[in-house]
Amino acid sequence: MKETSLSPEEKDLFMNEAIKEAHKALRLAEVPIGAVVVLNKEIIGRGYNLKETTQSAVKHAEMIAIQEACDQVASWRLENAQLFVTLEPCPMCSGAILQSRIEEVYFGAFDPKAGACGSLMNLLEDTRFNHWCYVESGVLSTTCSTLLRDFFKKIRTKKKQKKKEMLEKD
Amino acid sequence: MKETSLSPEEKDLFMNEAIKEAHKALRLAEVPIGAVVVLNKEIIGRGYNLKETTQSAVKHAEMIAIQEACDQVASWRLENAQLFVTLEPCPMCSGAILQSRIEEVYFGAFDPKAGACGSLMNLLEDTRFNHWCYVESGVLSTTCSTLLRDFFKKIRTKKKQKKKEMLEKD
Repeated sequence: MKETSLSPEEKDLFMNEAIKEAHKALRLAEVPIGAVVVLNKEIIGRGYNLKETTQSAVKHAEMIAIQEACDQVASWRLENAQLFVTLEPCPMCSGAILQSRIEEVYFGAFDPKAGACGSLMNLLEDTRFNHWCYVESGVLSTTCSTLLRDFFKKIRTKKKQKKKEMLEKD
Repeated sequence: MKETSLSPEEKDLFMNEAIKEAHKALRLAEVPIGAVVVLNKEIIGRGYNLKETTQSAVKHAEMIAIQEACDQVASWRLENAQLFVTLEPCPMCSGAILQSRIEEVYFGAFDPKAGACGSLMNLLEDTRFNHWCYVESGVLSTTCSTLLRDFFKKIRTKKKQKKKEMLEKD
């Protein structure tokens, strides 16, 4: 079993940075998900969900943070790095974590519909692959999940309002 | 169950285009893997493995082809599109296929070590996700696997040669 290399204070600190990234997504009306990649206690990659803004299926927070981290260290190997993300990674992002050899993954809220780090499956701790990670869930989970819940609640309210207006017009 | 929308001739035609992409990777001494995304019988995205050249963990052939296809149609939704790739996609690329709603996936050689479309798992036909695909393996498999086998054989020969030279020096 792999172990964490960070203190609880450090985990909260870096997850708060991921939450800051999630707020950037929110400001663009994107699903608020943010991520940072950390190496030697320093952030080397940041990302937030840009799927709608860029109209790209692969522009998840984690993918952008991992790409920036690779650019930063000029290597596809992010050994000894940690990734912090507000929501449990999907299969694509979990696969990117394995590809980049990230050592530790910390996430806030679980994603029961598409999560691949414990919910539907656990790609990061599957020892059949040539790399696996230390995984910790629930870091600042209330903040991370409230951010998402509020976002979807607002969308539902807007949809209801629109429907009501349409019915009143008829 | 989903069905194929292409004839055997069309499948060979598009896989040959993916093989052309794989050869571009080979010329850069990258693991020779290539991919194309097809929509309405036209190629809208091309990609070949650029992991070492770009030192990016996420620059697999499929990821590049999917990104190009999204750019081409200005949408993250690649519904009704097909992806052709010379090697069975890994979890990252399988996840990207799901994210982009690609409808049909055709691959050449199986990847028993990291394949996520039948070898270690089958992410593309997992009905727990909000999207799943038609998957067909073995399209021009001999050409696709020979390309990879020859590449790794050359690498092993080079390594042996180097070791021999080192021992002779001592």
